[in-house]
Amino acid sequence: MAKDKKLVEAITSMDVDFAQWYTDVVKKAELMDYSSVRGCMIFKPAGYALWENIQRELDRRFKETGVENVYMPMFIPESLLEVEKDHVEGFAPEVTWVTHGGMNELQERLCVRPTSETLFCDFYKNDIESYRDLPKLYNQWCSVVRWEKETRPFLRSREFLWQEGHTAHATTEEAEERTIQMLNLYADFVEEFLAIPVIRGQKTEKEKFAGAKDTYTIEALMHDGKALQSGTSHNFGDGFAKAFGIQYTDKDNQLKYVHQTSWGMTTRLIGALIMVHGDDSGLVLPPAVAPTQVMVIPVQQRKEGVMEACAALKDRLTTVCRAKLDDSDKSPGWKYSEQEMRGIPLRIELGPRDIAENHCVAVRRDTREKIVIALDEVETVLPQLLDQIQKDMFERAKAHRDSHIYDAHDYQEFCEIVNTKPGYIRGMWCGDRACEDKIKEETGATSRCMPFDDQEQISATCVCCGKPAKKLVYWGRAY
Amino acid sequence: MAKDKKLVEAITSMDVDFAQWYTDVVKKAELMDYSSVRGCMIFKPAGYALWENIQRELDRRFKETGVENVYMPMFIPESLLEVEKDHVEGFAPEVTWVTHGGMNELQERLCVRPTSETLFCDFYKNDIESYRDLPKLYNQWCSVVRWEKETRPFLRSREFLWQEGHTAHATTEEAEERTIQMLNLYADFVEEFLAIPVIRGQKTEKEKFAGAKDTYTIEALMHDGKALQSGTSHNFGDGFAKAFGIQYTDKDNQLKYVHQTSWGMTTRLIGALIMVHGDDSGLVLPPAVAPTQVMVIPVQQRKEGVMEACAALKDRLTTVCRAKLDDSDKSPGWKYSEQEMRGIPLRIELGPRDIAENHCVAVRRDTREKIVIALDEVETVLPQLLDQIQKDMFERAKAHRDSHIYDAHDYQEFCEIVNTKPGYIRGMWCGDRACEDKIKEETGATSRCMPFDDQEQISATCVCCGKPAKKLVYWGRAY
Repeated sequence: MAKDKKLVEAITSMDVDFAQWYTDVVKKAELMDYSSVRGCMIFKPAGYALWENIQRELDRRFKETGVENVYMPMFIPESLLEVEKDHVEGFAPEVTWVTHGGMNELQERLCVRPTSETLFCDFYKNDIESYRDLPKLYNQWCSVVRWEKETRPFLRSREFLWQEGHTAHATTEEAEERTIQMLNLYADFVEEFLAIPVIRGQKTEKEKFAGAKDTYTIEALMHDGKALQSGTSHNFGDGFAKAFGIQYTDKDNQLKYVHQTSWGMTTRLIGALIMVHGDDSGLVLPPAVAPTQVMVIPVQQRKEGVMEACAALKDRLTTVCRAKLDDSDKSPGWKYSEQEMRGIPLRIELGPRDIAENHCVAVRRDTREKIVIALDEVETVLPQLLDQIQKDMFERAKAHRDSHIYDAHDYQEFCEIVNTKPGYIRGMWCGDRACEDKIKEETGATSRCMPFDDQEQISATCVCCGKPAKKLVYWGRAY
Repeated sequence: MAKDKKLVEAITSMDVDFAQWYTDVVKKAELMDYSSVRGCMIFKPAGYALWENIQRELDRRFKETGVENVYMPMFIPESLLEVEKDHVEGFAPEVTWVTHGGMNELQERLCVRPTSETLFCDFYKNDIESYRDLPKLYNQWCSVVRWEKETRPFLRSREFLWQEGHTAHATTEEAEERTIQMLNLYADFVEEFLAIPVIRGQKTEKEKFAGAKDTYTIEALMHDGKALQSGTSHNFGDGFAKAFGIQYTDKDNQLKYVHQTSWGMTTRLIGALIMVHGDDSGLVLPPAVAPTQVMVIPVQQRKEGVMEACAALKDRLTTVCRAKLDDSDKSPGWKYSEQEMRGIPLRIELGPRDIAENHCVAVRRDTREKIVIALDEVETVLPQLLDQIQKDMFERAKAHRDSHIYDAHDYQEFCEIVNTKPGYIRGMWCGDRACEDKIKEETGATSRCMPFDDQEQISATCVCCGKPAKKLVYWGRAY
């Protein structure tokens, strides 16, 4: 039994040191490894399989709204990056520069894309001529590079995987509609597929994307009470179009600038999955995204007929879910502990006595509840059980999130909460950048968003300066 | 009608200038565009959709053999690239170097991966301990960069998309078996999915991959008689393992070096599709890989009931194939010409008279044959027709390939053939590098492979030097 506990003992308890718990889980669940380039990570099979499932589902949802995939080069000439002033200011400090190709120095430096607005604009400039060419609804799946100083697996790495959508529209209304449509698509995806509740809202001027007119965000709350920006959607208005000269001839024969959007989601969603659902035994994956949903584990596997019965059960299960059989020669206890560490939503224990009684025992990863299931009913019961787990995990995360939202009516109260109660702080804001700066500097909290669905006026004055308030803001420390 | 012909007239005839025809087709079929970085291309939706279909099918076949996907960083530290001597010599002349991250010069230059052997080795060194960890069957989908001087859309670009598989095994036999398994998987995929016949064989020492013990290849013949290397599979033996120190403890408790393989396929397959199947009206896509398999085109679409009947037909077709309806306000002739340019395997014409007679007219892209189909039989007839097109396209390409294989018994005959008959030349070889070099320098032909399935001894002496011959080689000019 000592050996069986090794895996769990290898990780720090989340209540003792959440950051260390996180680092332990990503390693012990074999999601990633560190590479020889500091800040760049290796996605191991279990980690990449999560990204593949996220990709497949998001891509399906994108295409349902008319989005098409393309691929732009990974290099941006320095002069192209510099065309839009705000954009280059936002990104230049953290880009990497290619200076040599083969044996020769390049005539112009190329940066490895930190994001591809400039490449899409350069392309749209030539590709769009008439209103008939609009809208353009393009997306690409790729990796981008931002040379960050502090990094953390999945949450912030120097190279990360993402999708970036870039659209061009005839009117400002259409662009705004698409911006909101994609934000809602993101929110639905994260809630339905990852079982993570999110708050939808708008970023302040300070927090918006470099070059955007408006940035919208979905914010999730991690188990430790810190926020994680989980997806953003930007309306560029015609700012980039004017900088790059992207014009089209409208029906009225007038030359007009296009209106653009962009929107992105990254591999940090994997970090969110870990930090929202995980526990002291490791990962806990929602069934929808789990690469393996059910692990069949034989009990007394050397007894006659056990392995055969387990294999037959697994074969039946693969017709209704993603099931595997652990037929290795490890002990059942060790297998349980591995299944728990990897976050597989259900395990099925099947031994001689179960076979004799014509049932199996399902154990939920999220609640550890044991459920006895008649063997001839597994094809109907298991999928229902997986659905139930998905729903329960969302409700549990939502209850946790909702119980970590606090109201602050003045600065003293704000500071008290921020230091004692991890979570979101609802606080009114005057609209001044100075207050955001002060709050960030003195408390470490940032404005997460001005929520769409919560417009309550919880006080008349700014939680920071006491002047008349304009907007409700969700504040919090964030990853 | 003048306008209807515009699309076709915009491309050069393949017999007049094959290279120009190719360039015209990739542009007019909207597969790609040029980017602001010379030699780096933009994959437009029609081009990327081909890659997505290739990816989906290849990935499925990989996973059936136990392969798992991972993702390695795109950067390789200079010192890591230099660990294996032959490898760095092969790639150093064409890599790009990142020298600055953010505002600072890097302590060590990083190259953007031209291929990832060194990264996988660096990872395996730590990840593999025991025979229980073997085999490792990893693959990644990514882009790589090789700073080539001359580039061409899809065939040779400075950045291209590919997959690279990297495996590690306990024994040399297992590694060889996997190398051949993947080569056969590639060959079957290209023949079955892309309808392109290939010749499987081994590369000579001169042509093998930098650092490999043996390189195997599949070679395809383009319409103009030039060869295209379409996929390669390498057996590294324990060369990389010794350079990087990748050892495992075997069952006998001895420390042993692993044996490795790698294998890759790239977006140049799209170039192969174009150059094997295309004609003077544009692309011709095999149904299996075609993003749209059937385009429904209304005739006299303003007449009552026509558009509704076309939409209903298209809805029925989408249950059995990838069908679309062209309901734009262009003329039918223009739509036909677009469907042809884009290589959509079948178009369905449906007008008032067809509706009255309860049939529709299918027109094959590959043969232009018109087939009248009863409307209540489309769900059964169309899939059969698509299968037939797939088979016919393969047979046609195979007949073309087989009629372009010539035997040369001495150097004079070789030179005559190479200058008058584009295609493969079968010629015996003594095994000396000098003969390969001479043939390449004087004729432009290279050794494509030593074929597996053709061991005929067509003469006793080397086609170049006249000394005793060892091996039959397929020679040819290549892309």
